[in-house]
Amino acid sequence: MAKELKNFTKRSDNYSQWYNELVVKADLAEQSAVRGCMVIKPYGYAIWEKMQRQLDDMFKETGHQNAYFPLLIPKSFLSREAEHVEGFAKECAVVTHHRLKNDPNGGGVVVDPEARLEEELIIRPTSETIIWNTYKNWITSYRDLPILVNQWANVMRWEMRTRMFLRTAEFLWQEGHTAHATKEEAEAEAIKMLNVYSDFAEKFMAVPVVKGVKSPNERFAGALDTYTIEAMMQDGKALQSGTSHFLGQNFAKAFDVTFMNKDNKPEYVWATSWGVSTRLMGALIMTHSDDNGLVLPPKLAPIQVVIVPIYKNEEGLKAISEKVEPLVKELRAKGISVKYDDADNRRPGFKFADYEIKGVPVRLAIGQRDLEEGTVEIMRRDTLEKETVKFDGIVAEVERLLEDIQNNLFTKALKMRESKTVTVDSYEEFKEKIEDGGFILAHWDGTPETEEKIKEETKATIRCIPFDGDKTPGVCMVTGKPSAQRVVFARSY
Amino acid sequence: MAKELKNFTKRSDNYSQWYNELVVKADLAEQSAVRGCMVIKPYGYAIWEKMQRQLDDMFKETGHQNAYFPLLIPKSFLSREAEHVEGFAKECAVVTHHRLKNDPNGGGVVVDPEARLEEELIIRPTSETIIWNTYKNWITSYRDLPILVNQWANVMRWEMRTRMFLRTAEFLWQEGHTAHATKEEAEAEAIKMLNVYSDFAEKFMAVPVVKGVKSPNERFAGALDTYTIEAMMQDGKALQSGTSHFLGQNFAKAFDVTFMNKDNKPEYVWATSWGVSTRLMGALIMTHSDDNGLVLPPKLAPIQVVIVPIYKNEEGLKAISEKVEPLVKELRAKGISVKYDDADNRRPGFKFADYEIKGVPVRLAIGQRDLEEGTVEIMRRDTLEKETVKFDGIVAEVERLLEDIQNNLFTKALKMRESKTVTVDSYEEFKEKIEDGGFILAHWDGTPETEEKIKEETKATIRCIPFDGDKTPGVCMVTGKPSAQRVVFARSY
Repeated sequence: MAKELKNFTKRSDNYSQWYNELVVKADLAEQSAVRGCMVIKPYGYAIWEKMQRQLDDMFKETGHQNAYFPLLIPKSFLSREAEHVEGFAKECAVVTHHRLKNDPNGGGVVVDPEARLEEELIIRPTSETIIWNTYKNWITSYRDLPILVNQWANVMRWEMRTRMFLRTAEFLWQEGHTAHATKEEAEAEAIKMLNVYSDFAEKFMAVPVVKGVKSPNERFAGALDTYTIEAMMQDGKALQSGTSHFLGQNFAKAFDVTFMNKDNKPEYVWATSWGVSTRLMGALIMTHSDDNGLVLPPKLAPIQVVIVPIYKNEEGLKAISEKVEPLVKELRAKGISVKYDDADNRRPGFKFADYEIKGVPVRLAIGQRDLEEGTVEIMRRDTLEKETVKFDGIVAEVERLLEDIQNNLFTKALKMRESKTVTVDSYEEFKEKIEDGGFILAHWDGTPETEEKIKEETKATIRCIPFDGDKTPGVCMVTGKPSAQRVVFARSY
Repeated sequence: MAKELKNFTKRSDNYSQWYNELVVKADLAEQSAVRGCMVIKPYGYAIWEKMQRQLDDMFKETGHQNAYFPLLIPKSFLSREAEHVEGFAKECAVVTHHRLKNDPNGGGVVVDPEARLEEELIIRPTSETIIWNTYKNWITSYRDLPILVNQWANVMRWEMRTRMFLRTAEFLWQEGHTAHATKEEAEAEAIKMLNVYSDFAEKFMAVPVVKGVKSPNERFAGALDTYTIEAMMQDGKALQSGTSHFLGQNFAKAFDVTFMNKDNKPEYVWATSWGVSTRLMGALIMTHSDDNGLVLPPKLAPIQVVIVPIYKNEEGLKAISEKVEPLVKELRAKGISVKYDDADNRRPGFKFADYEIKGVPVRLAIGQRDLEEGTVEIMRRDTLEKETVKFDGIVAEVERLLEDIQNNLFTKALKMRESKTVTVDSYEEFKEKIEDGGFILAHWDGTPETEEKIKEETKATIRCIPFDGDKTPGVCMVTGKPSAQRVVFARSY
């Protein structure tokens, strides 16, 4: 089975198939019996839990509290904000009845036609509408503002083509929904949360991201501005990894949410919303993993260090276990998650392959000769480099290695992105370069028409108008009209 | 507003109304726009998060891992287990369509009749069916067992009469689903998790519970045995607070889940499931709270200590703040959650009332004279006792008090339960005593018919056949037939 585990598609042969196989073989997730919905398996969920915990801490540090709003949204709510309904009221799960009954013809259970709902309910594709309908009752005066609330929840969008973690009908996410007294404060909040997302992506996921603002075509339905972090996968495609929206007063107007300002005059409330989802799992997997399986940054690895004993008999195992037990304790005391795998029903070679495919950052192997010589074999998953080192001082070595792997993964991903980012001035060159994948920095005249034309002809979209980098004005590569700055084009997931 | 906050129904006047008002006034939850679904507000959710974190730690300590399964269940799955379909396929939310479209008559959006699902999907009322359909692919050999998985999720049961936290259409819960090679192991798991629940209830919620097994009438649909923890509310009614089910091989048979045992022979897998929900919030609120508002056990209080400065001017506040800041730090270093409320827009009297209604266990108040005399006023929420003590040594005093409050709440609740538990031998006496509320220990002949008769005539049900206590056999109070031991009767939520 060790061999079978390793026997999967190479990235260079078929990147997409490599990803699909990896998700299953690393035991992260699998397709369920329900179209487009996945089962997140314990190992995959453990990574998601680490992400959640870290993000939740960061939200709380920035003053947010969690709450919970209903799963179901009255159909009429979706129509209240004109653009929102266009964006979200199309492909969604609709609840029409509230009862089943035994089939009078004996065919199991059937929908009871008498239990039809007066108004259909939609499984939330996102919660702006139900939340702003609620905020109406929470807000009277400027003293009630800001409201800084986040929700961890499942949402549903009836996607036609799904891929595990990247695009599923049901997915898990967090959605922050904040209410403010001024435009400036709401805009600052949207930017603040974008920065939280980019910090999380870069410092914990080791995924470098480009921060910027979306073009009008790519904006969230109902937003005045959508900010985004865009990551580059190893095939050069962009993955939108998190978005933060400045919603202006659109939802306040749609749900009639006003507050009395300090001058005792009514004003509409200003809003933001921001979210990241289990899609981050896709970004994590695709950024670092290799043809041998998953590669995880130590800060998000459920198991950071695995220790595998190599022994001939029970006595041999006992001697190794006695040596290893204090080490396990010492590593745990340092906050390092360790697994000592002394299971008897799998051979070391199998264990090695399994932990390699699961992306455990550091593997220690210890055998009879190591005991005699006071050594241990240490392997790092990112480079697959092995080394035999002194057992004494191994704790410091593991700590150093975990930090090094975390940094190395980020640096490697950044270099990859830089090597696949090009600057282009003519549309001809653009059409050529886009076939290689990667980010293209090019001038654009700022119109939806030009963006649409480029998308139709090349399948590339504007990922964002980046905050950082070259701000020199120029002329649009397609129309020759003035352009304020280069924007990031790419094909995307 | 301080006065208004306190102006609510007394428990002795209308216990049910007192509860409903308290949930809203303590800012725990509110009704949403969707029938039977509540919004859990940040303060209520913070308590639920503390419960979740503690339970999750306890599940992991007992070897369980989290995973996530789909929200939607194919209708046909519910019919696979005969009793399960009777119990759960009645009142549930049914998804029949996957698209809305613009109303051709201009009336917003309507369900697109062309987007009808081939098979209707049910929002999970519980997940045994979809999970056992998944386990089928995970289990081949005895080496794949046990599977010890838990899921934190939202579920939906279309209840006709709902009450916040106690019975809502949508609720949050965890559901453990385990798979085992032997009957003995599965039974031991079901009991182990019941013990986790009772430990959590007693040591963290400070809610004493009676552990026992349900009578056949009250069993989970599809279980061979349902174990339960039953708590007594202040009105003497029972609240089923957590259940753990030994499912035998019922779901394995329904979904054809077999494994090769050590003798290489196929066997059906043995199962358990166990869950607690946001209903625990109801138990927590109703067990400890009083006519002044919420009372929280320190171990689950989002804010354990609040410090309120009493000052005349900015200079006065500054002097107090300088004294208080090191104290806040010292308390936090001890892992105590502290809020220093120096907000200028609310007067101390208002703050006192607000924290009282929110059940903050310990309140410190410090004014100008305290500064001069080196004192501080300390109030404990459970008894409302106030005392002025030396500022020096206040950290130790707060620690002692938090522990004392935690213990006192449990002792008080236990005494209350004991004072309302009676032993009864005749059905006449039973009918009289049941009107006073409380638990009645009585003999029962073990038949569903007798239980049904008692329920119809008195509205009391068998809460459980208790594990502990008097095991002396006797005769049924209704039929005079033999009874193995006394069982616990009560009216319940």
